[in-house]
Amino acid sequence: MQKMAKKQTDRLRIEKLKSSGPKEIFRNNAQIHDKLVNNFSKVVFEKLKKDFPNLEFRFRDSLYKKEINEKLNSVDSRLGITIFVEKASIKPDGGIIEVKDKNNNWRIVLVCEAKHQGKDIDNIRQGILVGKNNNQELMVAGNAIERSHKNINEIRNIMINEKHFPYILFLQGSNFLTEPETIKRPDGTEVILKHDIGSLNRIDRLTSANYSLPINKNSCENIFITIDGKSVMLQAVSIYTKSTEWTIEEMLPINDGCFKNFIKNFRFN
Amino acid sequence: MQKMAKKQTDRLRIEKLKSSGPKEIFRNNAQIHDKLVNNFSKVVFEKLKKDFPNLEFRFRDSLYKKEINEKLNSVDSRLGITIFVEKASIKPDGGIIEVKDKNNNWRIVLVCEAKHQGKDIDNIRQGILVGKNNNQELMVAGNAIERSHKNINEIRNIMINEKHFPYILFLQGSNFLTEPETIKRPDGTEVILKHDIGSLNRIDRLTSANYSLPINKNSCENIFITIDGKSVMLQAVSIYTKSTEWTIEEMLPINDGCFKNFIKNFRFN
Repeated sequence: MQKMAKKQTDRLRIEKLKSSGPKEIFRNNAQIHDKLVNNFSKVVFEKLKKDFPNLEFRFRDSLYKKEINEKLNSVDSRLGITIFVEKASIKPDGGIIEVKDKNNNWRIVLVCEAKHQGKDIDNIRQGILVGKNNNQELMVAGNAIERSHKNINEIRNIMINEKHFPYILFLQGSNFLTEPETIKRPDGTEVILKHDIGSLNRIDRLTSANYSLPINKNSCENIFITIDGKSVMLQAVSIYTKSTEWTIEEMLPINDGCFKNFIKNFRFN
Repeated sequence: MQKMAKKQTDRLRIEKLKSSGPKEIFRNNAQIHDKLVNNFSKVVFEKLKKDFPNLEFRFRDSLYKKEINEKLNSVDSRLGITIFVEKASIKPDGGIIEVKDKNNNWRIVLVCEAKHQGKDIDNIRQGILVGKNNNQELMVAGNAIERSHKNINEIRNIMINEKHFPYILFLQGSNFLTEPETIKRPDGTEVILKHDIGSLNRIDRLTSANYSLPINKNSCENIFITIDGKSVMLQAVSIYTKSTEWTIEEMLPINDGCFKNFIKNFRFN
Protein backbone atom coordinates (compact mmCIF):
# COMPACT_ATOMS: atom_id res chain seq x y z
CA MET A 1 0.00 0.00 0.00
CA GLN A 2 1.45 3.33 -0.99
CA LYS A 3 0.57 6.89 -0.22
CA MET A 4 -0.82 8.12 -3.51
CA ALA A 5 1.59 10.98 -4.11
CA LYS A 6 4.52 12.79 -2.58
CA LYS A 7 2.89 14.78 0.19
CA GLN A 8 5.39 17.59 0.41
CA THR A 9 5.29 18.39 -3.30
CA ASP A 10 1.52 18.40 -3.26
CA ARG A 11 1.34 20.61 -0.23
CA LEU A 12 3.57 23.20 -1.86
CA ARG A 13 1.47 23.01 -4.97
CA ILE A 14 -1.72 23.48 -2.96
CA GLU A 15 -0.26 26.42 -1.08
CA LYS A 16 0.62 28.04 -4.37
CA LEU A 17 -2.91 27.42 -5.63
CA LYS A 18 -4.46 28.75 -2.45
CA SER A 19 -2.56 31.97 -2.76
CA SER A 20 -3.99 32.42 -6.24
CA GLY A 21 -7.54 32.30 -4.79
CA PRO A 22 -10.33 29.74 -5.12
CA LYS A 23 -11.11 30.55 -8.73
CA GLU A 24 -7.62 29.65 -9.76
CA ILE A 25 -7.86 26.33 -7.99
CA PHE A 26 -10.66 25.16 -10.21
CA ARG A 27 -9.31 26.70 -13.37
CA ASN A 28 -6.09 24.80 -12.84
CA ASN A 29 -7.74 21.48 -12.11
CA ALA A 30 -7.23 20.08 -15.57
CA GLN A 31 -3.48 20.42 -15.38
CA ILE A 32 -3.03 19.31 -11.85
CA HIS A 33 -5.68 16.65 -11.47
CA ASP A 34 -3.66 13.55 -10.90
CA LYS A 35 -1.02 15.22 -8.73
CA LEU A 36 -3.35 16.23 -5.95
CA VAL A 37 -4.98 13.03 -4.79
CA ASN A 38 -3.55 13.23 -1.33
CA ASN A 39 -4.56 16.80 -0.80
CA PHE A 40 -7.93 16.95 -2.48
CA SER A 41 -9.49 17.46 0.95
CA LYS A 42 -7.78 20.82 1.09
CA VAL A 43 -9.40 21.77 -2.19
CA VAL A 44 -12.75 20.63 -0.74
CA PHE A 45 -11.97 22.73 2.33
CA GLU A 46 -11.40 25.84 0.21
CA LYS A 47 -14.58 25.13 -1.72
CA LEU A 48 -16.63 24.76 1.47
CA LYS A 49 -15.38 28.07 2.81
CA LYS A 50 -16.40 29.69 -0.47
CA ASP A 51 -19.77 27.94 -0.75
CA PHE A 52 -20.78 28.52 2.88
CA PRO A 53 -19.30 31.90 3.82
CA ASN A 54 -21.41 32.11 7.00
CA LEU A 55 -20.03 28.91 8.44
CA GLU A 56 -16.68 28.42 10.12
CA PHE A 57 -14.61 25.44 8.96
CA ARG A 58 -11.34 23.95 10.08
CA PHE A 59 -8.99 21.42 8.55
CA ARG A 60 -6.98 19.04 10.71
CA ASP A 61 -4.36 16.46 9.76
CA SER A 62 -4.90 14.35 12.85
CA LEU A 63 -7.07 13.66 15.88
CA TYR A 64 -5.78 12.68 19.30
CA LYS A 65 -7.02 9.37 20.70
CA LYS A 66 -7.71 11.43 23.83
CA GLU A 67 -10.36 13.44 21.98
CA ILE A 68 -11.96 10.27 20.69
CA ASN A 69 -11.95 8.84 24.21
CA GLU A 70 -13.48 12.06 25.58
CA LYS A 71 -16.33 11.80 23.10
CA LEU A 72 -16.95 8.14 23.94
CA ASN A 73 -16.82 8.92 27.64
CA SER A 74 -19.25 11.82 27.26
CA VAL A 75 -21.92 9.53 25.80
CA ASP A 76 -21.34 6.74 28.32
CA SER A 77 -18.97 6.91 31.28
CA ARG A 78 -17.96 3.25 30.86
CA LEU A 79 -16.31 4.04 27.53
CA GLY A 80 -13.19 5.90 26.50
CA ILE A 81 -11.09 5.23 29.56
CA THR A 82 -8.10 3.33 28.15
CA ILE A 83 -5.04 4.93 26.61
CA PHE A 84 -1.39 3.91 26.73
CA VAL A 85 0.53 6.45 24.66
CA GLU A 86 -0.56 9.87 25.92
CA LYS A 87 -0.07 11.57 22.55
CA ALA A 88 -1.51 8.75 20.42
CA SER A 89 -3.29 10.14 17.40
CA ILE A 90 -4.83 9.04 14.13
CA LYS A 91 -3.96 10.59 10.79
CA PRO A 92 -6.40 9.82 7.99
CA ASP A 93 -4.34 10.65 4.91
CA GLY A 94 -6.89 13.08 3.50
CA GLY A 95 -7.29 14.86 6.82
CA ILE A 96 -10.45 15.85 8.68
CA ILE A 97 -12.77 18.75 7.87
CA GLU A 98 -14.98 20.16 10.60
CA VAL A 99 -17.63 22.87 10.84
CA LYS A 100 -18.62 24.84 13.90
CA ASP A 101 -22.27 24.30 14.81
CA LYS A 102 -24.62 26.82 16.37
CA ASN A 103 -23.55 25.67 19.84
CA ASN A 104 -19.89 26.31 19.00
CA ASN A 105 -19.04 22.62 18.81
CA TRP A 106 -16.80 21.37 16.04
CA ARG A 107 -18.56 18.67 14.03
CA ILE A 108 -16.86 16.43 11.47
CA VAL A 109 -18.15 16.88 7.94
CA LEU A 110 -15.55 14.94 6.01
CA VAL A 111 -12.83 12.35 6.53
CA CYS A 112 -11.09 10.93 3.48
CA GLU A 113 -8.48 8.35 2.83
CA ALA A 114 -6.96 7.50 -0.53
CA LYS A 115 -5.38 4.08 -0.85
CA HIS A 116 -3.44 2.59 -3.71
CA GLN A 117 -2.90 -1.17 -3.92
CA GLY A 118 -2.01 -3.25 -6.96
CA LYS A 119 0.38 -2.06 -9.66
CA ASP A 120 -0.48 -4.76 -12.20
CA ILE A 121 -1.95 -2.38 -14.76
CA ASP A 122 1.18 -0.23 -14.90
CA ASN A 123 3.39 -3.28 -14.84
CA ILE A 124 1.61 -4.91 -17.78
CA ARG A 125 1.58 -1.69 -19.80
CA GLN A 126 5.30 -1.32 -19.24
CA GLY A 127 6.07 -5.00 -19.74
CA ILE A 128 7.43 -5.42 -16.23
CA LEU A 129 7.36 -8.98 -14.92
CA VAL A 130 7.13 -9.63 -11.18
CA GLY A 131 7.51 -12.37 -8.59
CA LYS A 132 10.51 -14.11 -7.12
CA ASN A 133 11.86 -15.13 -10.51
CA ASN A 134 10.60 -12.09 -12.42
CA ASN A 135 8.45 -14.31 -14.61
CA GLN A 136 4.89 -13.50 -13.48
CA GLU A 137 2.57 -11.05 -15.13
CA LEU A 138 0.40 -10.57 -12.01
CA MET A 139 1.40 -9.96 -8.42
CA VAL A 140 -0.63 -11.80 -5.78
CA ALA A 141 -2.47 -9.04 -3.92
CA GLY A 142 -1.32 -8.10 -0.43
CA ASN A 143 -3.36 -7.49 2.71
CA ALA A 144 -2.09 -4.10 3.84
CA ILE A 145 -5.37 -2.47 2.81
CA GLU A 146 -7.00 -4.21 5.77
CA ARG A 147 -5.33 -1.66 8.02
CA SER A 148 -7.88 0.87 6.74
CA HIS A 149 -10.41 -0.50 9.22
CA LYS A 150 -8.49 1.00 12.13
CA ASN A 151 -9.09 4.65 11.25
CA ILE A 152 -12.64 3.85 10.16
CA ASN A 153 -13.37 2.40 13.60
CA GLU A 154 -11.75 5.40 15.31
CA ILE A 155 -13.89 7.87 13.37
CA ARG A 156 -16.97 5.74 13.98
CA ASN A 157 -16.28 6.22 17.68
CA ILE A 158 -15.76 9.97 17.66
CA MET A 159 -18.94 10.26 15.57
CA ILE A 160 -20.92 7.89 17.76
CA ASN A 161 -23.53 10.54 18.52
CA GLU A 162 -23.92 11.76 14.94
CA LYS A 163 -26.46 10.54 12.42
CA HIS A 164 -24.07 10.73 9.51
CA PHE A 165 -20.70 9.16 8.77
CA PRO A 166 -18.92 11.14 6.05
CA TYR A 167 -15.93 8.82 5.69
CA ILE A 168 -14.84 8.29 2.12
CA LEU A 169 -12.33 5.72 1.03
CA PHE A 170 -10.96 6.37 -2.44
CA LEU A 171 -9.38 3.16 -3.69
CA GLN A 172 -7.11 2.88 -6.67
CA GLY A 173 -5.21 0.08 -8.33
CA SER A 174 -5.59 -3.35 -9.82
CA ASN A 175 -6.68 -4.86 -6.49
CA PHE A 176 -9.90 -2.86 -6.62
CA LEU A 177 -11.47 -3.64 -9.98
CA THR A 178 -15.28 -3.81 -10.15
CA GLU A 179 -15.31 -5.25 -13.69
CA PRO A 180 -12.85 -6.99 -15.99
CA GLU A 181 -10.30 -4.70 -17.58
CA THR A 182 -8.28 -5.21 -20.74
CA ILE A 183 -4.69 -4.00 -20.61
CA LYS A 184 -2.30 -3.75 -23.54
CA ARG A 185 1.22 -5.07 -23.31
CA PRO A 186 4.01 -3.08 -24.96
CA ASP A 187 3.90 -5.54 -27.89
CA GLY A 188 0.23 -4.72 -28.49
CA THR A 189 -1.18 -8.01 -27.20
CA GLU A 190 -3.80 -7.85 -24.48
CA VAL A 191 -4.30 -9.20 -20.96
CA ILE A 192 -7.70 -9.32 -19.32
CA LEU A 193 -7.55 -8.53 -15.63
CA LYS A 194 -10.45 -10.21 -13.90
CA HIS A 195 -12.25 -8.42 -11.07
CA ASP A 196 -13.50 -11.54 -9.33
CA ILE A 197 -10.42 -13.62 -8.58
CA GLY A 198 -9.10 -14.06 -5.07
CA SER A 199 -5.47 -13.44 -5.96
CA LEU A 200 -6.23 -9.97 -7.32
CA ASN A 201 -9.34 -8.41 -5.79
CA ARG A 202 -9.21 -6.94 -2.29
CA ILE A 203 -12.49 -4.98 -2.13
CA ASP A 204 -14.08 -7.77 -0.10
CA ARG A 205 -11.49 -7.09 2.62
CA LEU A 206 -13.08 -3.69 3.16
CA THR A 207 -16.80 -4.28 2.79
CA SER A 208 -17.32 -5.24 6.42
CA ALA A 209 -16.93 -1.50 6.99
CA ASN A 210 -19.93 -0.72 4.80
CA TYR A 211 -22.05 -3.78 5.68
CA SER A 212 -21.61 -4.91 2.05
CA LEU A 213 -23.62 -1.98 0.76
CA PRO A 214 -22.98 -1.13 -2.88
CA ILE A 215 -19.58 0.26 -3.87
CA ASN A 216 -19.27 3.69 -5.53
CA LYS A 217 -22.26 5.04 -3.67
CA ASN A 218 -22.62 7.66 -0.95
CA SER A 219 -23.36 5.95 2.36
CA CYS A 220 -22.81 9.00 4.57
CA GLU A 221 -26.27 8.97 6.07
CA ASN A 222 -26.39 6.41 8.86
CA ILE A 223 -28.69 3.44 8.50
CA PHE A 224 -30.97 2.52 11.36
CA ILE A 225 -32.12 -1.07 11.49
CA THR A 226 -34.43 -2.68 14.00
CA ILE A 227 -33.43 -5.79 15.90
CA ASP A 228 -35.71 -7.27 18.55
CA GLY A 229 -37.63 -4.01 18.59
CA LYS A 230 -34.46 -2.05 19.28
CA SER A 231 -32.91 0.42 16.92
CA VAL A 232 -29.32 -0.23 15.87
CA MET A 233 -27.32 2.52 14.16
CA LEU A 234 -24.93 1.55 11.40
CA GLN A 235 -22.06 3.79 10.32
CA ALA A 236 -20.99 2.73 6.84
CA VAL A 237 -17.88 3.92 5.07
CA SER A 238 -18.42 5.13 1.51
CA ILE A 239 -16.10 3.15 -0.75
CA TYR A 240 -15.23 4.51 -4.18
CA THR A 241 -12.91 2.63 -6.47
CA LYS A 242 -11.08 3.09 -9.76
CA SER A 243 -8.34 1.11 -11.42
CA THR A 244 -6.51 4.27 -12.51
CA GLU A 245 -5.71 7.52 -10.74
CA TRP A 246 -8.47 9.62 -9.25
CA THR A 247 -8.80 13.21 -10.35
CA ILE A 248 -10.00 16.16 -8.30
CA GLU A 249 -12.86 16.58 -10.78
CA GLU A 250 -14.05 13.07 -10.03
CA MET A 251 -13.64 13.42 -6.28
CA LEU A 252 -15.28 16.79 -5.76
CA PRO A 253 -18.89 15.82 -6.52
CA ILE A 254 -18.53 12.80 -4.22
CA ASN A 255 -17.40 15.03 -1.36
CA ASP A 256 -20.15 17.53 -2.12
CA GLY A 257 -22.68 14.73 -1.81
CA CYS A 258 -21.49 13.95 1.69
CA PHE A 259 -21.53 17.49 2.88
CA LYS A 260 -24.99 18.29 1.55
CA ASN A 261 -26.21 15.24 3.39
CA PHE A 262 -24.84 16.65 6.57
CA ILE A 263 -26.30 20.14 6.04
CA LYS A 264 -29.66 18.53 5.40
CA ASN A 265 -29.53 16.56 8.64
CA PHE A 266 -28.15 19.17 10.93
CA ARG A 267 -29.34 22.53 9.61
CA PHE A 268 -26.51 24.75 10.67
CA ASN A 269 -27.84 27.66 8.72
CA MET B 1 3.05 -9.94 13.12
CA GLN B 2 3.55 -13.64 13.38
CA LYS B 3 1.27 -16.57 13.79
CA MET B 4 1.99 -17.68 17.32
CA ALA B 5 3.08 -21.21 16.58
CA LYS B 6 3.48 -23.66 13.76
CA LYS B 7 -0.07 -24.65 12.95
CA GLN B 8 0.59 -28.07 11.55
CA THR B 9 2.65 -29.23 14.50
CA ASP B 10 0.02 -27.95 16.90
CA ARG B 11 -2.78 -29.61 15.03
CA LEU B 12 -1.04 -32.96 15.20
CA ARG B 13 -0.41 -32.43 18.86
CA ILE B 14 -4.07 -31.56 19.47
CA GLU B 15 -5.24 -34.57 17.51
CA LYS B 16 -3.03 -36.77 19.64
CA LEU B 17 -4.42 -35.14 22.75
CA LYS B 18 -7.97 -35.47 21.55
CA SER B 19 -7.54 -39.15 20.99
CA SER B 20 -6.38 -39.53 24.59
CA GLY B 21 -9.69 -38.05 25.77
CA PRO B 22 -10.51 -34.79 27.49
CA LYS B 23 -8.95 -35.74 30.82
CA GLU B 24 -5.58 -36.19 29.18
CA ILE B 25 -5.81 -32.79 27.58
CA PHE B 26 -5.88 -31.03 30.90
CA ARG B 27 -3.39 -33.33 32.60
CA ASN B 28 -0.93 -32.58 29.85
CA ASN B 29 -1.40 -28.83 29.92
CA ALA B 30 1.67 -28.13 31.99
CA GLN B 31 3.99 -29.67 29.43
CA ILE B 32 2.34 -28.37 26.34
CA HIS B 33 1.16 -24.96 27.42
CA ASP B 34 3.15 -22.67 25.26
CA LYS B 35 2.97 -24.81 22.16
CA LEU B 36 -0.77 -24.65 21.76
CA VAL B 37 -1.63 -20.99 21.56
CA ASN B 38 -2.97 -21.22 18.06
CA ASN B 39 -5.18 -24.15 18.80
CA PHE B 40 -6.45 -23.38 22.26
CA SER B 41 -9.92 -22.89 20.77
CA LYS B 42 -9.95 -26.60 20.00
CA VAL B 43 -9.26 -27.33 23.64
CA VAL B 44 -12.11 -24.99 24.55
CA PHE B 45 -14.26 -26.82 22.02
CA GLU B 46 -13.53 -30.17 23.64
CA LYS B 47 -14.23 -28.68 27.06
CA LEU B 48 -17.57 -27.23 25.93
CA LYS B 49 -18.68 -30.60 24.55
CA LYS B 50 -17.79 -32.16 27.87
CA ASP B 51 -19.35 -29.44 30.05
CA PHE B 52 -22.59 -29.19 28.04
CA PRO B 53 -23.29 -32.72 26.82
CA ASN B 54 -26.86 -31.82 25.83
CA LEU B 55 -25.79 -29.11 23.42
CA GLU B 56 -24.40 -29.56 19.93
CA PHE B 57 -21.26 -27.62 19.09
CA ARG B 58 -19.25 -27.20 15.92
CA PHE B 59 -15.81 -25.81 15.23
CA ARG B 60 -15.03 -23.98 12.00
CA ASP B 61 -11.75 -22.57 10.69
CA SER B 62 -13.40 -20.03 8.44
CA LEU B 63 -16.63 -18.28 7.48
CA TYR B 64 -17.62 -17.33 3.96
CA LYS B 65 -18.27 -13.65 3.29
CA LYS B 66 -21.45 -14.94 1.64
CA GLU B 67 -22.75 -16.17 5.00
CA ILE B 68 -21.94 -12.84 6.59
CA ASN B 69 -23.75 -11.05 3.77
CA GLU B 70 -26.74 -13.37 4.14
CA LYS B 71 -27.02 -12.51 7.81
CA LEU B 72 -26.77 -8.77 7.11
CA ASN B 73 -29.32 -9.07 4.35
CA SER B 74 -31.72 -11.01 6.57
CA VAL B 75 -31.85 -8.17 9.11
CA ASP B 76 -32.16 -5.44 6.48
CA SER B 77 -32.48 -5.99 2.74
CA ARG B 78 -30.30 -2.97 1.93
CA LEU B 79 -27.28 -4.69 3.48
CA GLY B 80 -25.11 -7.61 2.47
CA ILE B 81 -25.42 -7.27 -1.28
CA THR B 82 -21.82 -6.70 -2.40
CA ILE B 83 -19.25 -9.40 -3.01
CA PHE B 84 -16.50 -9.66 -5.60
CA VAL B 85 -14.69 -12.93 -4.96
CA GLU B 86 -17.39 -15.60 -4.76
CA LYS B 87 -15.45 -17.78 -2.33
CA ALA B 88 -14.11 -14.95 -0.16
CA SER B 89 -13.84 -16.05 3.44
CA ILE B 90 -12.43 -14.92 6.75
CA LYS B 91 -10.18 -17.10 8.90
CA PRO B 92 -9.77 -15.91 12.48
CA ASP B 93 -6.66 -17.77 13.56
CA GLY B 94 -8.31 -19.37 16.59
CA GLY B 95 -11.33 -20.46 14.59
CA ILE B 96 -15.03 -20.10 15.36
CA ILE B 97 -17.06 -22.13 17.84
CA GLU B 98 -20.81 -22.36 17.40
CA VAL B 99 -23.67 -23.95 19.27
CA LYS B 100 -27.01 -25.09 17.87
CA ASP B 101 -29.91 -23.25 19.48
CA LYS B 102 -33.39 -24.63 20.15
CA ASN B 103 -34.51 -23.45 16.71
CA ASN B 104 -31.67 -25.37 15.06
CA ASN B 105 -29.74 -22.25 14.17
CA TRP B 106 -25.98 -22.18 14.63
CA ARG B 107 -24.99 -19.33 16.93
CA ILE B 108 -21.42 -18.13 17.47
CA VAL B 109 -20.18 -18.58 21.01
CA LEU B 110 -16.47 -17.88 20.56
CA VAL B 111 -14.09 -16.32 18.07
CA CYS B 112 -10.45 -15.96 19.06
CA GLU B 113 -7.37 -14.51 17.52
CA ALA B 114 -3.88 -14.66 18.95
CA LYS B 115 -1.44 -12.01 17.73
CA HIS B 116 2.23 -11.63 18.43
CA GLN B 117 4.00 -8.34 17.76
CA GLY B 118 7.29 -7.09 19.19
CA LYS B 119 10.27 -9.34 19.82
CA ASP B 120 12.23 -6.85 21.94
CA ILE B 121 12.09 -8.92 25.12
CA ASP B 122 13.59 -11.99 23.47
CA ASN B 123 16.12 -9.87 21.59
CA ILE B 124 17.35 -8.14 24.74
CA ARG B 125 17.56 -11.40 26.70
CA GLN B 126 19.63 -12.92 23.91
CA GLY B 127 21.70 -9.79 23.33
CA ILE B 128 20.49 -9.42 19.74
CA LEU B 129 20.78 -5.89 18.36
CA VAL B 130 18.42 -4.75 15.62
CA GLY B 131 17.92 -1.97 13.09
CA LYS B 132 19.59 -1.14 9.80
CA ASN B 133 23.06 -1.07 11.34
CA ASN B 134 22.42 -3.75 13.97
CA ASN B 135 23.10 -1.24 16.72
CA GLN B 136 19.67 -0.65 18.28
CA GLU B 137 18.31 -2.39 21.34
CA LEU B 138 14.66 -1.71 20.47
CA MET B 139 12.81 -2.14 17.20
CA VAL B 140 10.33 0.60 16.31
CA ALA B 141 6.95 -1.13 16.46
CA GLY B 142 5.15 -1.94 13.22
CA ASN B 143 1.52 -1.43 12.27
CA ALA B 144 0.52 -4.89 11.02
CA ILE B 145 -1.59 -5.44 14.13
CA GLU B 146 -4.06 -2.88 12.75
CA ARG B 147 -5.22 -5.53 10.28
CA SER B 148 -6.98 -7.22 13.24
CA HIS B 149 -9.86 -4.78 12.84
CA LYS B 150 -10.94 -6.44 9.59
CA ASN B 151 -12.00 -9.76 11.11
CA ILE B 152 -13.46 -7.97 14.12
CA ASN B 153 -15.71 -5.94 11.83
CA GLU B 154 -16.70 -9.06 9.88
CA ILE B 155 -17.74 -10.90 13.04
CA ARG B 156 -19.54 -7.79 14.31
CA ASN B 157 -21.61 -8.00 11.14
CA ILE B 158 -22.49 -11.68 11.29
CA MET B 159 -23.42 -11.16 14.96
CA ILE B 160 -25.40 -8.00 14.29
CA ASN B 161 -28.57 -9.50 15.75
CA GLU B 162 -26.92 -10.97 18.84
CA LYS B 163 -26.64 -9.30 22.22
CA HIS B 164 -23.19 -10.65 22.89
CA PHE B 165 -19.88 -10.42 21.06
CA PRO B 166 -17.55 -13.20 22.21
CA TYR B 167 -14.50 -12.08 20.23
CA ILE B 168 -11.26 -12.41 22.15
CA LEU B 169 -7.97 -10.99 21.02
CA PHE B 170 -5.00 -12.50 22.83
CA LEU B 171 -2.04 -10.18 22.33
CA GLN B 172 1.54 -11.07 23.06
CA GLY B 173 4.85 -9.30 22.71
CA SER B 174 6.73 -6.16 23.64
CA ASN B 175 4.33 -3.96 21.66
CA PHE B 176 1.53 -4.77 24.08
CA LEU B 177 2.89 -3.95 27.54
CA THR B 178 0.47 -2.55 30.10
CA GLU B 179 3.18 -1.65 32.58
CA PRO B 180 6.97 -1.14 32.51
CA GLU B 181 8.97 -4.33 32.34
CA THR B 182 12.57 -4.94 33.34
CA ILE B 183 14.55 -7.24 31.08
CA LYS B 184 18.00 -8.66 31.76
CA ARG B 185 20.69 -8.55 29.11
CA PRO B 186 23.02 -11.56 28.80
CA ASP B 187 25.67 -9.60 30.75
CA GLY B 188 23.28 -9.21 33.69
CA THR B 189 22.57 -5.51 33.20
CA GLU B 190 18.96 -4.44 32.89
CA VAL B 191 16.79 -2.58 30.41
CA ILE B 192 13.44 -1.11 31.37
CA LEU B 193 10.86 -1.42 28.60
CA LYS B 194 8.31 1.34 28.97
CA HIS B 195 4.65 0.65 28.25
CA ASP B 196 3.71 4.21 27.35
CA ILE B 197 6.02 5.21 24.53
CA GLY B 198 4.81 5.62 20.98
CA SER B 199 7.67 3.73 19.38
CA LEU B 200 6.87 0.56 21.34
CA ASN B 201 3.23 0.33 22.40
CA ARG B 202 0.57 -0.64 19.89
CA ILE B 203 -2.44 -1.35 22.13
CA ASP B 204 -3.92 2.05 21.27
CA ARG B 205 -4.12 0.89 17.65
CA LEU B 206 -6.71 -1.67 18.71
CA THR B 207 -8.82 0.08 21.32
CA SER B 208 -11.21 1.61 18.80
CA ALA B 209 -12.56 -1.95 18.59
CA ASN B 210 -13.44 -1.94 22.29
CA TYR B 211 -14.45 1.73 22.61
CA SER B 212 -11.43 2.16 24.91
CA LEU B 213 -12.96 -0.07 27.54
CA PRO B 214 -10.45 -1.55 29.98
CA ILE B 215 -7.94 -4.10 28.69
CA ASN B 216 -7.79 -7.62 30.19
CA LYS B 217 -11.49 -7.62 30.89
CA ASN B 218 -14.36 -9.61 29.42
CA SER B 219 -16.45 -7.35 27.20
CA CYS B 220 -18.54 -10.09 25.58
CA GLU B 221 -21.87 -8.72 26.69
CA ASN B 222 -22.91 -5.93 24.34
CA ILE B 223 -23.25 -2.44 25.72
CA PHE B 224 -26.37 -0.44 24.92
CA ILE B 225 -26.03 3.31 25.11
CA THR B 226 -28.70 5.91 24.49
CA ILE B 227 -28.18 8.71 22.02
CA ASP B 228 -30.97 11.20 21.30
CA GLY B 229 -33.41 8.80 22.93
CA LYS B 230 -32.33 6.00 20.59
CA SER B 231 -30.57 2.87 21.69
CA VAL B 232 -27.20 2.16 20.09
CA MET B 233 -25.66 -1.30 20.45
CA LEU B 234 -21.90 -1.54 20.87
CA GLN B 235 -19.99 -4.75 20.10
CA ALA B 236 -16.66 -4.56 21.90
CA VAL B 237 -13.78 -6.93 21.34
CA SER B 238 -12.25 -8.35 24.53
CA ILE B 239 -8.53 -7.56 24.47
CA TYR B 240 -6.17 -9.56 26.66
CA THR B 241 -2.48 -8.87 26.63
CA LYS B 242 0.76 -10.33 27.98
CA SER B 243 4.38 -9.60 27.20
CA THR B 244 5.27 -13.30 27.24
CA GLU B 245 3.58 -16.36 25.81
CA TRP B 246 0.03 -17.22 26.75
CA THR B 247 -0.70 -20.61 28.25
CA ILE B 248 -3.82 -22.69 27.88
CA GLU B 249 -4.31 -22.44 31.65
CA GLU B 250 -4.46 -18.66 31.40
CA MET B 251 -6.71 -18.64 28.38
CA LEU B 252 -9.30 -21.19 29.47
CA PRO B 253 -10.94 -19.17 32.26
CA ILE B 254 -11.19 -16.20 29.89
CA ASN B 255 -13.02 -18.29 27.32
CA ASP B 256 -15.24 -19.78 30.00
CA GLY B 257 -16.24 -16.29 31.04
CA CYS B 258 -17.43 -15.52 27.54
CA PHE B 259 -19.41 -18.65 27.13
CA LYS B 260 -21.19 -18.40 30.46
CA ASN B 261 -22.18 -14.93 29.47
CA PHE B 262 -23.80 -16.29 26.39
CA ILE B 263 -25.62 -19.09 28.16
CA LYS B 264 -26.95 -16.57 30.64
CA ASN B 265 -28.32 -14.38 27.87
CA PHE B 266 -29.72 -16.99 25.59
CA ARG B 267 -30.79 -19.93 27.77
CA PHE B 268 -30.29 -22.77 25.41
CA ASN B 269 -30.99 -25.31 28.08
